Amino acid sequence: MSKFLSSRFAGMQPYVPGEQPQGRQYIKLNTNESPFPPAPGVLSALSREEIARLNLYPDPDAREAGAAIAAYYGLQGDEVLLTNGSDEALAFCFQAYCDADTPAVYADITYGFYKVFARIYCVPSKVIPLTPRLEIDPEAYRDAGGTVFLANPNAPTGLALPLEQVEWILKHNRENIVVVDEAYVDFGGKSALPLLKKHDNLIIVQTMSKARNLAGARLGYALSNPALIADLNNMRFSFNPYNVNRLSLLAGAAAIRDEAYFRQCTAAIMENRAYTAEELRRRGFAVLESKANFLFAKPDRLSGEAYYAALKGKGVLVRHFAQPRIADYVRVSIGTREQMQALLGATDEIWREL
Amino acid sequence: MSKFLSSRFAGMQPYVPGEQPQGRQYIKLNTNESPFPPAPGVLSALSREEIARLNLYPDPDAREAGAAIAAYYGLQGDEVLLTNGSDEALAFCFQAYCDADTPAVYADITYGFYKVFARIYCVPSKVIPLTPRLEIDPEAYRDAGGTVFLANPNAPTGLALPLEQVEWILKHNRENIVVVDEAYVDFGGKSALPLLKKHDNLIIVQTMSKARNLAGARLGYALSNPALIADLNNMRFSFNPYNVNRLSLLAGAAAIRDEAYFRQCTAAIMENRAYTAEELRRRGFAVLESKANFLFAKPDRLSGEAYYAALKGKGVLVRHFAQPRIADYVRVSIGTREQMQALLGATDEIWREL
Repeated sequence: MSKFLSSRFAGMQPYVPGEQPQGRQYIKLNTNESPFPPAPGVLSALSREEIARLNLYPDPDAREAGAAIAAYYGLQGDEVLLTNGSDEALAFCFQAYCDADTPAVYADITYGFYKVFARIYCVPSKVIPLTPRLEIDPEAYRDAGGTVFLANPNAPTGLALPLEQVEWILKHNRENIVVVDEAYVDFGGKSALPLLKKHDNLIIVQTMSKARNLAGARLGYALSNPALIADLNNMRFSFNPYNVNRLSLLAGAAAIRDEAYFRQCTAAIMENRAYTAEELRRRGFAVLESKANFLFAKPDRLSGEAYYAALKGKGVLVRHFAQPRIADYVRVSIGTREQMQALLGATDEIWREL
Repeated sequence: MSKFLSSRFAGMQPYVPGEQPQGRQYIKLNTNESPFPPAPGVLSALSREEIARLNLYPDPDAREAGAAIAAYYGLQGDEVLLTNGSDEALAFCFQAYCDADTPAVYADITYGFYKVFARIYCVPSKVIPLTPRLEIDPEAYRDAGGTVFLANPNAPTGLALPLEQVEWILKHNRENIVVVDEAYVDFGGKSALPLLKKHDNLIIVQTMSKARNLAGARLGYALSNPALIADLNNMRFSFNPYNVNRLSLLAGAAAIRDEAYFRQCTAAIMENRAYTAEELRRRGFAVLESKANFLFAKPDRLSGEAYYAALKGKGVLVRHFAQPRIADYVRVSIGTREQMQALLGATDEIWREL
């Protein structure tokens, strides 16, 4: 940090994204991308004519893409906010609903960015430990006294919280916002969408990065009631009114309209996940019951870190978190069947070489 | 605002971007877009193959586009930060370098977002009036006691500050950052780039939205020394590590490599600006000496607001700011010769109908 940086950021630890090596070709199972290309409609939407119009600003109200997303979820346009990836939607929630008197409430093991957002927006955190089985205990969130951030399914565990328990948390935090981060919900989880009309304190955050095969386009969104979407729009218009570029708006609208392709891609991921979980368990791994496009798995013969490093040596990238309680695990993104077979083959080789 | 919104945002006024009507076709001279399509290389860079790769995250270090920008300015990769439009770069500067003890220092008449950033980041402002001729008086910035934001050329006046005066301000604020916002510098202004090696407190912010014809791609950048770029990267990695999408990175690299097209487009704008300024003056307007891709002009027969409204009625959109000191003016973006003739024709009609 330079001598000019505000002292409130002394010692700040930014988020560390998964490795994105640009040289050697790895089998990348470390950043939860989709292994499948975007829906065919995305290619036709990003036409030469549209690219030639990049000299013009995007619609700051993102009406077309917003309407497509609203229609998909049976909502109105003013119940949707589009953002530059779901991280931006989460950031707006931290800004709008956390302050010195309203801490951010989240699990000790969850999406690593919540801690980082709390730091950069200078708001206190109330960290609630997962149970010994790495599950969320709703009772621990009763009258939590702050804005609750629930990743459901959780990351990096992949474990899903049943919808009744999400609703229990909403009911027991009526004076505070509950943000349900559903980045991974389309791989077998249950969305809190049906709860939107019943609870005025619910914000759902989703992303096109995983189940819509658009990580490279950066498109996330929040779904909520018009009053909370208006709050978040106030944040957006005070930060970057043209926050989503023209081509990502077109890509997002096309992606959400192609439900058949979405079903096909997510079904393939869930099938490969079941296959990989079974194969890893056969090899002695403890594997959590994932509802996401990744598995959280603990090898029985090596530490998580050693297994990660050995896989990397064989050209397979997975993610390891050097962090209390989960250092024994690795997080493996679910790719194509061939990619998962490569992971298993590399694992067999590593075991033979031990 | 909802009852949940943090009380520190009570009464906040977000930025209001220029109108982006989606229905009736206007001649849009209100948001300072380029009237020309992106460089031909942008179209080839955004190939079918690249669009098919949108399932993968962008490079969070934006190495290729960063290297292209660095090469253009004779800098190293660690002296460049890429952002989702230059507004994001400016926001990171407010976050990193302003706090309760370090106000944001800026002119009373300047880019309207500075005030909004100060509000959303809850930092005090020190507002320094322009001279009666709407110019920046460097002396008024001596030991300003905060982080200085200088739009150069200034918006919406279009007036440029000579480089010696920018340097004078840098020298007389050695303990604080000076951010020079050069969104409009390529239309006849002088960049502070040569001052980067001499002053460790300088950050230059630029954008591809105007002179690079890429407003729809959302790509801005900061140029500074490695220590300050590292600070800003800390902000970026604490907010949105994948802040620029894949296609905008490719578009930006292609745009900055095509210097001939850039020269051709900016020359056309400067020529149309000179033509329009002369024609407006012939019609009795007071027109400031612009070095930007817009003119700030005061009609002698109507108020600024009435002229704006009359033009809109004739299908020509310009921007009016209902704000002290400048309410008599309108800001007219410079488009093609045909667009400027349409503005002048509409003006003549309005005068005839008075």
